[in-house]
Amino acid sequence: MLSDEIRTVAYEGGKLVILDQTLLPGREEYRELKNKEDVYRAIKRLEVRGAPAIGVAAAYGALVAVRAELEEDPETAKRFTAMSDEVFGYINSSRPTAVNLSWAIKGIREARDAALAENAGEPEGIAVNAALTAMEEKARAIHREDVESCRAMSEYGLTLLRPGMGILTHCNAGALATTGYGTALGPLHLGHERGYGFRVFADETRPLLQGARLTSWELHRVGADVTLICDNMASIVMRSGRVQACVVGCDRMAANGDGANKIGTSGVAILAKEYGIPFYMFVPMSTIDFSCETGDDIVIEERDGDEIRTLWYEQPMAPEGIKTFNPAFDVTPAEYITAVVTEKGIARPPYRESLAALREK
Amino acid sequence: MLSDEIRTVAYEGGKLVILDQTLLPGREEYRELKNKEDVYRAIKRLEVRGAPAIGVAAAYGALVAVRAELEEDPETAKRFTAMSDEVFGYINSSRPTAVNLSWAIKGIREARDAALAENAGEPEGIAVNAALTAMEEKARAIHREDVESCRAMSEYGLTLLRPGMGILTHCNAGALATTGYGTALGPLHLGHERGYGFRVFADETRPLLQGARLTSWELHRVGADVTLICDNMASIVMRSGRVQACVVGCDRMAANGDGANKIGTSGVAILAKEYGIPFYMFVPMSTIDFSCETGDDIVIEERDGDEIRTLWYEQPMAPEGIKTFNPAFDVTPAEYITAVVTEKGIARPPYRESLAALREK
Repeated sequence: MLSDEIRTVAYEGGKLVILDQTLLPGREEYRELKNKEDVYRAIKRLEVRGAPAIGVAAAYGALVAVRAELEEDPETAKRFTAMSDEVFGYINSSRPTAVNLSWAIKGIREARDAALAENAGEPEGIAVNAALTAMEEKARAIHREDVESCRAMSEYGLTLLRPGMGILTHCNAGALATTGYGTALGPLHLGHERGYGFRVFADETRPLLQGARLTSWELHRVGADVTLICDNMASIVMRSGRVQACVVGCDRMAANGDGANKIGTSGVAILAKEYGIPFYMFVPMSTIDFSCETGDDIVIEERDGDEIRTLWYEQPMAPEGIKTFNPAFDVTPAEYITAVVTEKGIARPPYRESLAALREK
Repeated sequence: MLSDEIRTVAYEGGKLVILDQTLLPGREEYRELKNKEDVYRAIKRLEVRGAPAIGVAAAYGALVAVRAELEEDPETAKRFTAMSDEVFGYINSSRPTAVNLSWAIKGIREARDAALAENAGEPEGIAVNAALTAMEEKARAIHREDVESCRAMSEYGLTLLRPGMGILTHCNAGALATTGYGTALGPLHLGHERGYGFRVFADETRPLLQGARLTSWELHRVGADVTLICDNMASIVMRSGRVQACVVGCDRMAANGDGANKIGTSGVAILAKEYGIPFYMFVPMSTIDFSCETGDDIVIEERDGDEIRTLWYEQPMAPEGIKTFNPAFDVTPAEYITAVVTEKGIARPPYRESLAALREK
């Protein structure tokens, strides 16, 4: 089972443990997060990454951090709401733009408030314990929801694939980005467990090399067949008949099915269309922004050019001061997407109608 | 003038000097090649690279190496043919697969033989001097031919471009690969000198990063406007309207116009077609293999996977032992090529006819 092999975020016996992804692919090291400083650092330094995994780590992290405060200074129980609000605010500031982070912290805060309200007349110790229990339940629920969502998406995705297929993927939408099977890599993990014998081609995904460092690591780790290629090799790999499907994740999808994902995704989609290969985008329902009409409304983050010029290198591999263009994402127009896989089912074009129908489901 | 700025291979006052490209983009250092060991090492270590530049360096190199032998031991004049054959064979073995290398050495040998035959009755000193003069004339002719071929290709290429255009290129088909303006980069250099104000986008070209290290260096060096991008950003750059033409080189073209070039070229061509952007391939006539019917007959070299896994990195950026697929080239089918630019003129589809017509010209 995948969950025995890769434990992106684990919570057992009151202990929160994460796989430190900054050490991959060289070292597989698990690290216990014991207090708010540990949790803040792990999220800020990308030791844990991927929207769903960050949400789960933040939820458990808020809990263990509040417990650590109480343990260090039992007097803080007297100002439990203020103390835990401080902890929540601190953890929430570790990656300000991560939606799942603030969403998870909000859930934990609401669980706390509901428990405190219910136990308003009780002695302080009882109210605090009830709040901690409610926070733990909420964190477990967030975790369970992620695992189940990945599982559902994987099962739906697997219906689109056949044993023995060659499958190309870009970036890392895998177990390492979630606490379950992953999104786009979910059906590949599931298929691997069921003996489908997929042959996976992983784009290295410049500039940050998530495909080389993470996707190829996690598939290799579970014993799946994976071949690492440079991004610009996707065309020859497809042309040579090695690939029968492409699977990718999604960072934000507009109501019409245009999907923003890691830079380079739209190029993969165009090649797939040209070679007649189906292109599937894996999109948790929470990632669909129905208030966003089309991909033109999605703003693309531009990142520091040093990621292209020097990052990962012993010495600069481009002339000093050379201009760069370094968009972090691109938008794949809906017309190139064969199907959108969500945890509620599979949507087919036209997406404005099919995605809205899934939303109502 | 470009030739004042970048001197890939220069021969003046009997001295052969090359730009050591292994130090780019960090350092611009010129190195005199004084004897056969210097010449062998410079070609083997890729201090000089690109088929035309290698040919010119080898031609001058054979001359200066033979002169050095004579200087070191004047007695070798007595066995001039044997001695120079040894030098030629040694230099020729520096890169066994480089066609221009053996072609240049063959030309120098023939020039020597013709001069020796003409002076068969003369004293040894006169015959040797005549041979050296003939070799120098031949080397200069090879050099001049490359400069003129680049110039012609650049002028033809420039007729396809308009001032202010955004132009995307892949790998390095530039001044650094030739002793003139380059092939695909030729019209960009020429346009720069004439104030065309092109905005060039250079794919970094994984795995060996010729775009980052060489193309962006040489365009930046002459003051042209160049922006470095990762290969997988070509799609968003084209989609955003920044690019009005693509220019690339060619390693080998089949009679039907299918062209093998650096890995990733076919992907650029497919994106260009999808976005309605013309795609031009720059192909010296000597690169067209009329005995090769289609691109299917072109064998693609596969290189060591460590180029993907570790090269350029302080530490491995992919799991140890991960499988890779590392083709050095791919074939761009003729249907994606808007025009083929040669030193004899521009060919348009259908290429079987138009290339054959240029050949007769």
